Amino acid sequence: MEKSSVGIVKPKTVFFKDDFFLESGRILSKLTVAYETYGTLNKEKDNAILICHALTGSHHAAGYYSPDDQKPGWWDDMIGPGKPFDTEKYFIICSNFLGSCYGTTGPASIDPSTGKPYGLRFPVFTVKDMVKLQKKLIDHLGIPKLLCVAGGSMGGMQALEWAVTFPEKVHSIIPIATAGRITPMAIAFNTIGRQAIMKDPNWLGGDYYGKTFPKDGLAIARMAGHITFMSDASFQKKFGRKYATLEGIYDFMGYFEVENYLRYNGYKFTERFDANSYLYIIKAMDIFDLSYGYGSFEEAVSRISCKSLFITFTSDFLFPNYQTEEIVSILKKLNRDVKWVNIESDYGHDAFLLEFDIQGSSVANFLEDVYDEIKK
Amino acid sequence: MEKSSVGIVKPKTVFFKDDFFLESGRILSKLTVAYETYGTLNKEKDNAILICHALTGSHHAAGYYSPDDQKPGWWDDMIGPGKPFDTEKYFIICSNFLGSCYGTTGPASIDPSTGKPYGLRFPVFTVKDMVKLQKKLIDHLGIPKLLCVAGGSMGGMQALEWAVTFPEKVHSIIPIATAGRITPMAIAFNTIGRQAIMKDPNWLGGDYYGKTFPKDGLAIARMAGHITFMSDASFQKKFGRKYATLEGIYDFMGYFEVENYLRYNGYKFTERFDANSYLYIIKAMDIFDLSYGYGSFEEAVSRISCKSLFITFTSDFLFPNYQTEEIVSILKKLNRDVKWVNIESDYGHDAFLLEFDIQGSSVANFLEDVYDEIKK
Repeated sequence: MEKSSVGIVKPKTVFFKDDFFLESGRILSKLTVAYETYGTLNKEKDNAILICHALTGSHHAAGYYSPDDQKPGWWDDMIGPGKPFDTEKYFIICSNFLGSCYGTTGPASIDPSTGKPYGLRFPVFTVKDMVKLQKKLIDHLGIPKLLCVAGGSMGGMQALEWAVTFPEKVHSIIPIATAGRITPMAIAFNTIGRQAIMKDPNWLGGDYYGKTFPKDGLAIARMAGHITFMSDASFQKKFGRKYATLEGIYDFMGYFEVENYLRYNGYKFTERFDANSYLYIIKAMDIFDLSYGYGSFEEAVSRISCKSLFITFTSDFLFPNYQTEEIVSILKKLNRDVKWVNIESDYGHDAFLLEFDIQGSSVANFLEDVYDEIKK
Repeated sequence: MEKSSVGIVKPKTVFFKDDFFLESGRILSKLTVAYETYGTLNKEKDNAILICHALTGSHHAAGYYSPDDQKPGWWDDMIGPGKPFDTEKYFIICSNFLGSCYGTTGPASIDPSTGKPYGLRFPVFTVKDMVKLQKKLIDHLGIPKLLCVAGGSMGGMQALEWAVTFPEKVHSIIPIATAGRITPMAIAFNTIGRQAIMKDPNWLGGDYYGKTFPKDGLAIARMAGHITFMSDASFQKKFGRKYATLEGIYDFMGYFEVENYLRYNGYKFTERFDANSYLYIIKAMDIFDLSYGYGSFEEAVSRISCKSLFITFTSDFLFPNYQTEEIVSILKKLNRDVKWVNIESDYGHDAFLLEFDIQGSSVANFLEDVYDEIKK
């Protein structure tokens, strides 16, 4: 364990027994939220930062679960003592979002009204619902206003949604590799995943709990997802055209390294993720659109009044940079305090989990500015 | 039927009863090849052009099958009297390639040794095998040397392979939206298709003939393919974020227009294509690599001694332009007679089936030059 780690961490849960009203009008009661925190909330309660995870992430953003644990949280390079999200200065919170499968209530949870897993009886939820549930957690922790909300990909959507829905509750946001609404091409990739899961004969209309898991469908969904995380250049660098089997290219079942990788990681993913959660979350991603309920996309974005730092990566084709450019230009026209750092990288969309030099220093400097201003 | 159509056409077949030796060492006997021709072979037999089709195409490249036929052949805009492949001047041949399912022998054909469909007993074949079978057809038609071999996507691979394998048999080639070997990202997309088909419980190891067709798997494969034919810009233009159902965005089964389109076309495709053919053909695409068997990619490309016209489209991310640039720069260094037209288009890879202005005039002018030179 490196010196700058937050060390051993313990996930926490909080139970909300009052009704939670979703955007759809549906009501969830008896909600559990899983979360982790790193660092210490100061007595002014003004050093709290909420980190939002992506599609298949969890609240385990930093540190280790045991001394033998080989794999730290998903943003360990960014969170810790002396790191960009500096736990010696800031109190970091990361919660598993609504509908996921790492401890927060989702489709695999027991429906209290039936005593069985929800399955497709779980309500469709939105990014705004995720954010509203995070708000309950923040209230529960006694934090009046967040210093910052930050996250990449779907985590960035939550950061944007926080600033639009609760402008009075955030001093700043850091949306990374994200968009105010995804492109039809991104929906197309989600379509592949959705069809693959729902056409898996083991999916059974979502009622597979206690039976055979629809792992082929979820694995194929993950393989399609993997393509979108990478870029033409990163595929070239990582795999090239290396052939994987000894049998040779005329073997019908032979395959290239890239296929080996996609298959291995596709199936490995099925050991850690719920198929229904995946369906509900990609649905939330598809229907996330800042403009819904406002007169226009511009009107929704104009609600972002706090300081913001946008980070993008040049080779990200899932969330193309022009989407961030659009938001930034709206905010600039309104003279908002907005920064945009477009980082040259071959890693594609995944870069927010891999490129830490410029991303890290940009975040560190931005947070210092925001915190200094508050403390003035 | 428009005036410049080749009119009503009739597909032909030729039967080769001698053994056909594949690159893999496997032998196919009793091969049938389906093909069409348009225009007339002149008495010098020097006006013949071979058109090569793409992954899911057929030998029906131009004209109509009946006076009521609503849909002409796949390249009807390019082939006909007064069109770029001018049937008043040239004799055009298009054959269904080896392993496809439109009349040429493939995995769905009857294996003469068992009296049952081949299924996975069909040998793995290559683009070179396709070209060698086309060569048998050309010999059969009594054509000593082709004026040109042209095609887009996998059709372009065949054009390249003709020039590399039979340099003495082609006066010129027109490879369009293609590559000398596909990228690992393109293999990744084929991986999705392959996994979707092979994990369909109706696939049955390829022995589904006479039973339930694995249409879910093939439909998902086609949906993944569709993504690669388009571009971010064409998805935006064609669909935007238009929502398709009346139930609203909180309906779990609701969908966007783009999903509707992908699903509809995915399933429609299963009515016209064989799943095993699809698997064998994407395998042939994956293992197509001009460099195989030569000292280097450069050495293979240097065998292209004829005149060549390369056409690419700016938004094609399946066959990125840098792949054509590489081939063109090798040929230029060798002072070969090579032209490259990179056409500005939002249509992505599909552009070769949709953009005819510059593509058409480039082809027409190139063919005229090649023909004039022969006739000098």
